[in-house]
Amino acid sequence: MPSISIKAEAMPASPIRKLVPYAEAAKKRGTKVYHLNIGQPDIETPEVALRAIKQLDRKVIEYSHSAGFESYRNKLSIAYLNQGLPINTEDILVTTGGSEALIFGFMSTCNPGDEIIIPEPFYANYNGFAVSAGLSVVPVTSHIEKSFALPPVEEIELKITNKTKAIVICNPGNPTGYLYSQKELEQLRDIVKKYDLFLFADEVYREFCYDGHKPFSVMNLKGIENHVVMVDSVSKRYSMCGARIGALITKNKEVMAAALKFGQARLSPPTVDQIAAEAALDTPQSYFDNVVSEYVERRNIMVDGLNAIPGVFCPKPSGAFYCVARFPVDDAERFCQWLLEEFNYKGQTVMMAPANGFYSTGGAGKNEARIAYVLNKESLRNAVECLKEALLVYPGKV
Amino acid sequence: MPSISIKAEAMPASPIRKLVPYAEAAKKRGTKVYHLNIGQPDIETPEVALRAIKQLDRKVIEYSHSAGFESYRNKLSIAYLNQGLPINTEDILVTTGGSEALIFGFMSTCNPGDEIIIPEPFYANYNGFAVSAGLSVVPVTSHIEKSFALPPVEEIELKITNKTKAIVICNPGNPTGYLYSQKELEQLRDIVKKYDLFLFADEVYREFCYDGHKPFSVMNLKGIENHVVMVDSVSKRYSMCGARIGALITKNKEVMAAALKFGQARLSPPTVDQIAAEAALDTPQSYFDNVVSEYVERRNIMVDGLNAIPGVFCPKPSGAFYCVARFPVDDAERFCQWLLEEFNYKGQTVMMAPANGFYSTGGAGKNEARIAYVLNKESLRNAVECLKEALLVYPGKV
Repeated sequence: MPSISIKAEAMPASPIRKLVPYAEAAKKRGTKVYHLNIGQPDIETPEVALRAIKQLDRKVIEYSHSAGFESYRNKLSIAYLNQGLPINTEDILVTTGGSEALIFGFMSTCNPGDEIIIPEPFYANYNGFAVSAGLSVVPVTSHIEKSFALPPVEEIELKITNKTKAIVICNPGNPTGYLYSQKELEQLRDIVKKYDLFLFADEVYREFCYDGHKPFSVMNLKGIENHVVMVDSVSKRYSMCGARIGALITKNKEVMAAALKFGQARLSPPTVDQIAAEAALDTPQSYFDNVVSEYVERRNIMVDGLNAIPGVFCPKPSGAFYCVARFPVDDAERFCQWLLEEFNYKGQTVMMAPANGFYSTGGAGKNEARIAYVLNKESLRNAVECLKEALLVYPGKV
Repeated sequence: MPSISIKAEAMPASPIRKLVPYAEAAKKRGTKVYHLNIGQPDIETPEVALRAIKQLDRKVIEYSHSAGFESYRNKLSIAYLNQGLPINTEDILVTTGGSEALIFGFMSTCNPGDEIIIPEPFYANYNGFAVSAGLSVVPVTSHIEKSFALPPVEEIELKITNKTKAIVICNPGNPTGYLYSQKELEQLRDIVKKYDLFLFADEVYREFCYDGHKPFSVMNLKGIENHVVMVDSVSKRYSMCGARIGALITKNKEVMAAALKFGQARLSPPTVDQIAAEAALDTPQSYFDNVVSEYVERRNIMVDGLNAIPGVFCPKPSGAFYCVARFPVDDAERFCQWLLEEFNYKGQTVMMAPANGFYSTGGAGKNEARIAYVLNKESLRNAVECLKEALLVYPGKV
């Protein structure tokens, strides 16, 4: 029997993979499990997008252009311009989710063996995309005490070698919810300019910014237009994760031409989903206002609730719908497993994603967990109560 | 400005890429262009699939399982079993098109630097997937005089080195339409067993077999279950190319586990399209009977028409909806360009895909072109007439 590949061996499993069987067993025992472990929002997809699907008037579901429907790219460009992002139609390659945009971006810019620097904790699937492209992830650690702000420039520069090809950020951040300031982004601008690197920014949570904060896009950084690749997606914006429509955005013509060749090999992004994504651009502002105010309330319930539990610390994030909390426990992974395997409070328990899976540095984030506040407020209140009660009885409490 | 990657430089452009501007210019001049160059059928998508899309009753377009909806995999398994293919639910990973199945398959089994043997001419995008995975394509030439039958075993064995990891076939074949016999597949079985290789079979045209021929699937080859990876797709079967729903199918548990890790990194295949693909499994047999009889007529018009033109030779294929024809010309690429740039007959011309793009061996297929007979019969008759008239006046005729 022929052996599988080295890449296949190196591909990381999902950070919550090990916990899934325990969650399933808990449900079988009749325990209600609050899923704070995944970024699948319960928010409804905008009616205008659903209607476009239901009113499909095609007899043949044909390929689209490999870069996506031109009508969609045009309309997307206008939407960006209206938001102050200087993005024209030709700067957009429609991809099958933000995931594909990252893979195409890495494949187009980095050679096998190259290094990419990523502030940790970071979205765990970046590891998978790096393995696919044969890259090494070099983490630079951000800290919960500093709300996961960008690490100091000197620390980032210390990580740069002659193999470094790119810096990758997620802004607002998954898993931290941290929103980089303009100043932080300008620090990154200076670094990528100085060392001639690419800057990848995953901005799929751009609409989820709170407390009056506005996101600052890498597309607005002056003087590094040819260094920047922005990744976007409709998944979170319109609660359309299953549409698998994203975009690779760059002013760098060579990168765009390269990414398009990868796009041509896979033919096209999905057609009906692009039609829905194009229609979604007509989503009224009130939809976003409602979603943002809902998430602010959810965040407050979750983060204030967590901080009210003795020994728990959770910085209050300004964006996305995640937070990372530090628990007074020996090992957050063990705590998360115990919550599912041995604990329940009034027949309820909580599933969280242990944060060690979001760090590359061994041992980092050992007593942290990521929480996605994507459930309704009552569920979140119950979840906080579960965690409070759990910490009263967890044997590994420190 | 940082440089793009070596892979990006190596990514091949589409074989028809260079011709696209000439086709556009021809249309601007008012010439009707018959597109025989692409595999986008004009056949309608089954009503049952379109209806499933229009009747979508979800409020949130959520991710599916990374391996695809279980309900879809179950129903797909039953459909395969009914066709005599021993494929269970756990042998199926739903992918974003057959393209992704090939990429996941290559990534899961082959290391960068490994070689894959492919009978040429072959589907040109295999080159792109090979580049993505860092593999070298080693062609073994099949010949138009032999209708593109499998090359002799000895020729294939001559290509095997200690870097060879897999043999890749497409059956029925794009671009040739050739349908491998059970005997030919058993020859491949013996080779992959002898040399401990993987056997990838792209069987997305399985439903398109003519003249009473039945396709023989690699899944029915005994004794090499752990060597076989089958690639499937709804694109051609249901004329749903834009749905981007395919499948990686294997009995090899290690390969399946590896491919699933790549699948988890990209989260899920598209949701609404899977719903449509699941519904499409209820397409009545009459749909396929009609499609097959339509394609038989189209093939006969095209192939018989081509062979009636002095100097043209086109083997009559038993499957898919392509044929490769040899023209009495100096260079088929030049001929194809000339057809668009300088020729028209009664205001009409033809766009074909020069076959050299489907060969890896330099110079091979120089006077051949691929024709997709995906247009209605009248258009095909007109296209044949155009080609006949063109060869009367083409200056590079030999």
